[in-house]
Amino acid sequence: MSYNAPVSDLTFALTKLAGLPQFEGHPAFETYDPDLVEPILDEAGKLARDVLAPLNQSGDKAGATLTDSGVKSAPGFADAYKAFREGGWMGLSAPEEWGGQGLPKVLGLAVMEMFHGANMAFALCPMLSFGAIEALLEHGTDAQKAKYLPHLVSGEWTGTMNLTEPQAGSDVGALKTKAVPNGDGSYAITGQKIYITWGDHDVAENIIHLVLARTPDAPAGSRGISLFIVPKRIVNDDGSLGDENGVKCIGLEEKVGIHASPTCVMEYDGATGWLIGEENKGLACMFTMMNSARLNVGLEGVAVGEAAWQTAFNYAQERKQGKATGVSGAAPILHHADVRRMLTTMRAKVMAARAICFATGVAADLANVAETPEAREEARLREELLTPIAKAWSTDMGVEIASLGVQVHGGMGFMNETLAAQLYRDARIAPIYEGTNGIQAIDLVGRKLSMADGAAMTAMLAEVEQTAREARETNDPNLVQIADRLVEANRALSEATDWMVRTMKDDRDVALAGATAYLALAGDVVGGHFLTKGAIEARSESGSMRGRMTALAGFYAETSLAAAPGAVASITQGGQAMLAESDALFGID
Amino acid sequence: MSYNAPVSDLTFALTKLAGLPQFEGHPAFETYDPDLVEPILDEAGKLARDVLAPLNQSGDKAGATLTDSGVKSAPGFADAYKAFREGGWMGLSAPEEWGGQGLPKVLGLAVMEMFHGANMAFALCPMLSFGAIEALLEHGTDAQKAKYLPHLVSGEWTGTMNLTEPQAGSDVGALKTKAVPNGDGSYAITGQKIYITWGDHDVAENIIHLVLARTPDAPAGSRGISLFIVPKRIVNDDGSLGDENGVKCIGLEEKVGIHASPTCVMEYDGATGWLIGEENKGLACMFTMMNSARLNVGLEGVAVGEAAWQTAFNYAQERKQGKATGVSGAAPILHHADVRRMLTTMRAKVMAARAICFATGVAADLANVAETPEAREEARLREELLTPIAKAWSTDMGVEIASLGVQVHGGMGFMNETLAAQLYRDARIAPIYEGTNGIQAIDLVGRKLSMADGAAMTAMLAEVEQTAREARETNDPNLVQIADRLVEANRALSEATDWMVRTMKDDRDVALAGATAYLALAGDVVGGHFLTKGAIEARSESGSMRGRMTALAGFYAETSLAAAPGAVASITQGGQAMLAESDALFGID
Repeated sequence: MSYNAPVSDLTFALTKLAGLPQFEGHPAFETYDPDLVEPILDEAGKLARDVLAPLNQSGDKAGATLTDSGVKSAPGFADAYKAFREGGWMGLSAPEEWGGQGLPKVLGLAVMEMFHGANMAFALCPMLSFGAIEALLEHGTDAQKAKYLPHLVSGEWTGTMNLTEPQAGSDVGALKTKAVPNGDGSYAITGQKIYITWGDHDVAENIIHLVLARTPDAPAGSRGISLFIVPKRIVNDDGSLGDENGVKCIGLEEKVGIHASPTCVMEYDGATGWLIGEENKGLACMFTMMNSARLNVGLEGVAVGEAAWQTAFNYAQERKQGKATGVSGAAPILHHADVRRMLTTMRAKVMAARAICFATGVAADLANVAETPEAREEARLREELLTPIAKAWSTDMGVEIASLGVQVHGGMGFMNETLAAQLYRDARIAPIYEGTNGIQAIDLVGRKLSMADGAAMTAMLAEVEQTAREARETNDPNLVQIADRLVEANRALSEATDWMVRTMKDDRDVALAGATAYLALAGDVVGGHFLTKGAIEARSESGSMRGRMTALAGFYAETSLAAAPGAVASITQGGQAMLAESDALFGID
Repeated sequence: MSYNAPVSDLTFALTKLAGLPQFEGHPAFETYDPDLVEPILDEAGKLARDVLAPLNQSGDKAGATLTDSGVKSAPGFADAYKAFREGGWMGLSAPEEWGGQGLPKVLGLAVMEMFHGANMAFALCPMLSFGAIEALLEHGTDAQKAKYLPHLVSGEWTGTMNLTEPQAGSDVGALKTKAVPNGDGSYAITGQKIYITWGDHDVAENIIHLVLARTPDAPAGSRGISLFIVPKRIVNDDGSLGDENGVKCIGLEEKVGIHASPTCVMEYDGATGWLIGEENKGLACMFTMMNSARLNVGLEGVAVGEAAWQTAFNYAQERKQGKATGVSGAAPILHHADVRRMLTTMRAKVMAARAICFATGVAADLANVAETPEAREEARLREELLTPIAKAWSTDMGVEIASLGVQVHGGMGFMNETLAAQLYRDARIAPIYEGTNGIQAIDLVGRKLSMADGAAMTAMLAEVEQTAREARETNDPNLVQIADRLVEANRALSEATDWMVRTMKDDRDVALAGATAYLALAGDVVGGHFLTKGAIEARSESGSMRGRMTALAGFYAETSLAAAPGAVASITQGGQAMLAESDALFGID
């Protein structure tokens, strides 16, 4: 079996770590029933395991192909998409008004984790549709919603996000695509976009492109960007599909991984588009999609990590080499302490990252539905704080874990056709797209730490402290030891945060030189907070969950948390050591 | 330019860090002249830059192919090999008696770093020949030496190493290939070997396979293994080439990287072979090749790291995104602090790993040629101690640095045809072959720490202490700060070493669960020791070297060395936390 739906781990993370149960009886989620969580995950898990996972390696091998009539998806993908659509998975967390099931977004995240874990190249297609749905919900007119949302929510059509141009990557403000008014309320969109995920394909009847472009008199830079809806086929007023629009895929990128996900060069040649949101406020609209996409990309790190852990664990049970204590004859390599350590590292970090992502999802839900404005604002701050951590920490972890998965496989892991090798290749994109992890770190220290006078991080630090206190109060020696590590690590994060906030004012370059290291520390500590919470909560669990969560938290405490105090200098001193002799450093004699 | 020979960094590492100058006037190296170091590196650098580097990406794309008449190397590789051979590079460090130039091995390592950096897939071919030369020099009879060495040293023929079989990877003792006496002193070798690097090709006239096999009455396991010379074409007594031998390549692996290096499945079907060394002592002979190969593989980490740093640095100078302090208009991303930090991390770790590898090479030279038996033994202990660190730490670093190189490139780094992407794929094999990095860690803590009552690590710790003292005595505030970090880190390594030696006796599994983390710490500290030494030595250097080495050592001290104390718990406590609940940890509910 190439992918096993980790339903018990997902349920545990949702209910015991991320706070899903608070939505029981919540007026915004009338359809939510706690008893349905496991059945929903089971059902999604079946699609992941039985339909998506079997296409993962074949899709990697075949890839998508560009033909005269557009992009043809890898064999089997169109049928898999049909099964996905018929399962109603696209609408799980969408409003009932538009045909969705109105469940909390975080439940949709858990489902998406399994789809990404089973077949990341496939799951990217619905992931982009989610972003388009979010943007329409938040910024679309009633007419736009009525025209597009039912088809997107049903999965009948898919969505894309068109930001990047050759000269405008991380610097979106440098984009040049033009939008000229046609005089009838529509615009003629002309320009080239690159790196467009699932920009064209044959798995759905229409594609709704959301495209950033400049109107003729727009100011320069990021303040002159507007967002447009550009359907692949024009949608008539009666809802039927009309003419092909002036947009096509003119090239597919050859990538290191996610081969079955068509990464398109898109040419817009006077394509008809409609403004969504206000003119020149396109970047704000795009951020709605980006925030959703960033969390989903973080989840890809978790998903690939989970898949890598499963693959490595299966291999370690089968592959026999050498002798081990208590095993007669050649021992499965699972019994070697060093292999076991790799597997433990994988499993601990996957669970930590999963909890961070799900907690971000719950915060995103609460930011919309919490009962008081204060509670919504608090949740929004938490969501904003955790989003860059969820994205960057989880995807860096995904690469590290996929690499460990290769290592467990030995020489076999370097063979291109093994799943372990594919995961190593697939994982590598996640730290890059939807804002590189460096951009996430700059977002964290440059914007998120200073929001509301630092309230978001202050609240997070207090919550970590509280978790440590609870762990200590169990009087379980294992948990007390974990609590000690967590307190020390949290103190380190607090110290680094103070320095960062101060230095962002005093010497921005020195601060930014420590941004990535700061984000790594924050992720380590917040991840440890959730694993500690897991060890506390698992005390009332049956089966192996209790022992597992204790061991994962304990291992993580002695490795990641114990390293936290030593990481402070890396943030506070590393940049200065580097910048002091910066020219010599990069001078080539 | 895709590869720029880093001659000044190599010269600095050889002469100021690794101790090459001590061979001046040494009776064993009469041909060694310090004034020739730079010219030799320059000349090798030209071959690397002008001949090998231009074939790196085309070789990745084309790969090697298996035809009816054997393996055909990627276009241009045969000519490149001819240029390599005609340059006399194969014999640089080989004894003059056999046609070599009799120079220290460490000089050959520096040259090989450039070949690996320019084109790792190519450099693997001579790397394996070096191993065969070493094995023949140490274990061959006079007749065997006379028959094979001149042709190997000239590069006219190449060598291979045949250990692995499907069921016998890390556990070499499980191999099954048979060697049955023919009655004339030769043996009939029958069996299948996998993962044989450059096992067949068209770049040289003959291939000398060194093959591990079992004679009919050999004891089971690793004590029943013998080593055989199996030429691709039989060599007549007059030195001319005779018949094809019963060995052929029956398959090529499709790998994640090093595509132009043919990784062969070799079939031995009664091939004629000759015993080298004593019967059943094959493993000891193989270790001669392995030690050489392990150090060379460590160097691959350095080489790929250097190539990744150069590629990322070039890109960061060209690619413009966003604004930066002191730059008008769009700034080259080199000016962004976060990008600069990635580049600094790359350059610092590459230099640290290079120094470790070269110092291991000098120790290997001294183990052969030092004037007293005591000095030779001391050098041998140093070589043995550093070899697993050089192999594992440098190759883990290589993967990390290549991944950072991808990150600097953003979306472009995920495009398969970019050099950054290729380096990420190529780098991944090095932690696996020639003994996985886990095996290296077990070798370090299981065998190397206990040699001569721990003398090797004791001497290393004392040397690090001495370097810190020298740094402090400069009274340069930068160096004093670095010295403080080095002392703390060294204390952590000392503490971890004591624990490890003790625990290997008391609870082997707990000790081995910390082996990889211990090796990482040892590498961090020894690498820091060399960078500190670099900062001291560079005080008398001209140009940017002084500032560069101070910045690299300073940055490394605040990042890697400052993290060392926090890594001790990972070694001493991590394993226990994990093993305590081991079954639950891996139980799937």
